[in-house]
Amino acid sequence: MNAGKPTPFTDGRTSQRMLETAGIFPGDRLRLTSGKREFEGILMPRPDSGDPNVLIIKLDNGYNIGLKLSLESKLEKLEDAAVRSKMSKNESNSHASKKFNPGLSKVDLIYTGGTIGSKVDYATGGVYMLTKPEELLDSVPEIAEIANLRLNNLMSIASEDMSYLEWQKIAKAAADSLNDGAKGVVITHGTDTMHYTSAALSFMLKDLRGPVVIVGSQRSSDRGSSDAFMNMVAGTKVAAESDIAEVTICMHATTSDRHCNVIRGTKVRKMHTSRRDAFQPINDRPIASVNYEGKITYVANYSKVVGNDEKTKLMTGFEPKIALIKVYPNSDPGILEYYSGKGYKGVIIEGTGLGHAPVSTPHSGFNWLGQIESAVDSGMIVGMTSQCINGRVNEKVYRNLRLIKKAGGLFCEDMISEVAYVKLGWLLGNYKKEEAAELLAQNMAGEISAKSEVDWFGE
Amino acid sequence: MNAGKPTPFTDGRTSQRMLETAGIFPGDRLRLTSGKREFEGILMPRPDSGDPNVLIIKLDNGYNIGLKLSLESKLEKLEDAAVRSKMSKNESNSHASKKFNPGLSKVDLIYTGGTIGSKVDYATGGVYMLTKPEELLDSVPEIAEIANLRLNNLMSIASEDMSYLEWQKIAKAAADSLNDGAKGVVITHGTDTMHYTSAALSFMLKDLRGPVVIVGSQRSSDRGSSDAFMNMVAGTKVAAESDIAEVTICMHATTSDRHCNVIRGTKVRKMHTSRRDAFQPINDRPIASVNYEGKITYVANYSKVVGNDEKTKLMTGFEPKIALIKVYPNSDPGILEYYSGKGYKGVIIEGTGLGHAPVSTPHSGFNWLGQIESAVDSGMIVGMTSQCINGRVNEKVYRNLRLIKKAGGLFCEDMISEVAYVKLGWLLGNYKKEEAAELLAQNMAGEISAKSEVDWFGE
Repeated sequence: MNAGKPTPFTDGRTSQRMLETAGIFPGDRLRLTSGKREFEGILMPRPDSGDPNVLIIKLDNGYNIGLKLSLESKLEKLEDAAVRSKMSKNESNSHASKKFNPGLSKVDLIYTGGTIGSKVDYATGGVYMLTKPEELLDSVPEIAEIANLRLNNLMSIASEDMSYLEWQKIAKAAADSLNDGAKGVVITHGTDTMHYTSAALSFMLKDLRGPVVIVGSQRSSDRGSSDAFMNMVAGTKVAAESDIAEVTICMHATTSDRHCNVIRGTKVRKMHTSRRDAFQPINDRPIASVNYEGKITYVANYSKVVGNDEKTKLMTGFEPKIALIKVYPNSDPGILEYYSGKGYKGVIIEGTGLGHAPVSTPHSGFNWLGQIESAVDSGMIVGMTSQCINGRVNEKVYRNLRLIKKAGGLFCEDMISEVAYVKLGWLLGNYKKEEAAELLAQNMAGEISAKSEVDWFGE
Repeated sequence: MNAGKPTPFTDGRTSQRMLETAGIFPGDRLRLTSGKREFEGILMPRPDSGDPNVLIIKLDNGYNIGLKLSLESKLEKLEDAAVRSKMSKNESNSHASKKFNPGLSKVDLIYTGGTIGSKVDYATGGVYMLTKPEELLDSVPEIAEIANLRLNNLMSIASEDMSYLEWQKIAKAAADSLNDGAKGVVITHGTDTMHYTSAALSFMLKDLRGPVVIVGSQRSSDRGSSDAFMNMVAGTKVAAESDIAEVTICMHATTSDRHCNVIRGTKVRKMHTSRRDAFQPINDRPIASVNYEGKITYVANYSKVVGNDEKTKLMTGFEPKIALIKVYPNSDPGILEYYSGKGYKGVIIEGTGLGHAPVSTPHSGFNWLGQIESAVDSGMIVGMTSQCINGRVNEKVYRNLRLIKKAGGLFCEDMISEVAYVKLGWLLGNYKKEEAAELLAQNMAGEISAKSEVDWFGE
């Protein structure tokens, strides 16, 4: 079936020979023609691992694209790196980018791993972590024109494997950076649990001296369609130049490359498994947007950096014996007893609709009311949120809701379930139980918006 | 503070007197002026309970509005019900609506309860179930002009209290209706778990002889802003006139009243606690839309009614010993052992991103891999979905995903978590375990869309 197609190269030797024959080295501008497709751009340094037959080319639109060479590929050198460097005012090759520029802010980049710190193995389709985070900076040299970057290689972990122990480490690193002269902090992070981390940092960091911006990518940075480049540029812009004294997530706002959203860390959720615009604000507007040229447009209120000598403070206690439970038809309320038996201190119940759990079901096996009551009686905090994700829970509208409230369920307003879970652990790690229960449904870090009639009563 | 405002009426006597003084009875056209606000419409019959000082008025746009009388309200009779009835070709008062019209299809309305079958108590703000479902028909007399309706008062239950036992009853009632000559079926249902029920019916009903349309409302039908009217009209239109041989949900497409969406029962989710457009299609387009005038526009492919004598079949087995578990940072994998110990036959794990659970965490207490393996070894089916809601899980991209697959996790493509949960119970209730495992990630009722590159690789 593939008889007519050229055989894929089996190792990197043929590719290397083709480059050498054309006299092309990293930093040179080249044209690659493959069948009807034609690409022009700068050859990027080869990563240490990955398919050696894939050339990473930075296109003129700023994107890095990974192109696999075949026997039908034609390579042509358009410009020498040395010539280009003299012509360009912006010294955009990776070597030059590491010089200190006194006209730019200091920004610390805290590396934690994730897809943005990964590359695809074009042979298997699998994705692997970078062994050297410096490769990430090399692949987005433009950020060196935005700020004087200092790389903190903190950890290399897929975000789905993170726990509160990592949140504590990252919070400390961010506070240290800000207290050590950085104007802002950029954290590169896997996307799976990015919104859990952004919530955790929002609670753990107090009196921010500068922006703390989390960025990631849905495609590894060596891929043609990667969103890493634009997210990194936009995130660094916000860290270097904005006065947003909040923890935010900066990711693509749409599937196109028009702009990134800067979203409050307690009002954001990954809403798609793979799209570049997966991170969407929930029950909130984004704080700002950053367009492709790096222009920041502010669209909502936010806490501003106060220009005094206050240090950024840490409050990183966390009680891990908490759970997030989803209810659904036929769901077994015995799960509350299970957690209570294991010494759990609190649970968030992700209810249906306005914060319902099955409490008046004709089939007693599925009735949650008694178990909620027992859990509360045994000293656990029980918070109610909604699996609808958007909107606000409300303890008043229906009888079932009033029963849950009477049993001790605390209705968490328009707080996202995942944020309520993080907040509960943080509260129990830093406050007495009574205070924690008191604070759960009160706004502390932008996680709860003021109630408006529109939320639940009508348009 | 309220000294300047008229005291709210304490019982219904003043209101009743005001109506009598103006000579206004149910069915009459009236004008109500209250301060600067003015309303014209038909006075609807008073519900048996609820605030007696609230008049339910059907506006000319078809909406019922609940207006509370006060001392500053002025009432004026515009037209007598009898006169209006002679003038109007459309016999739109509730009494006339019950005559059989040989030009219209037979549609059965299965009443199950929920907000659409509730009314607000304006005194407390609480909402109560109707004691007589006939009141619902009285409040939307227009549907009698669309179809010959037969009311099946099946149950009166809030949807959050439903279990698979109710799903089985509703499925049987719908099949009975279709096999007994109904052209289509409309099911009125609470919104909280409407999408669980729509999924259950999609699997339980085979060879549909006509449309099965589930409708509900986010505001009780006696409320000014109620969506009950339009959803009922649109749903009845679809049941009476379309050839959609699928279980669908028909609810507002936007917050305005322009049109309703008809969404496949396995591709829909309640995405807002209170907005009228809460039900949104997930990983799918709506099958059709119905505008305010009742015009149906088909926008996607669907299974069509086959005009033969095949009966609609039932397959209502359901295994309740299944669970839907959400993972998150620090989540305790011991929960799998708990369910396994209780004799559970399967679980759906709502993972992060592409279907991740923490499996390579440096902190062994949070590592799910061993527990997934043990659960599968013990004979449980473990399905993987994503809490991102939108998009498709993918077992190939990352190492952690491949580890979960190797441990026996079954990746459920682009199936919604709640649908995967319902499907798993249905499969285990009707098939042998091996067949159930085989069928979980295969499309059976529109729940899994064909894979396309776009889903996960790039635009």
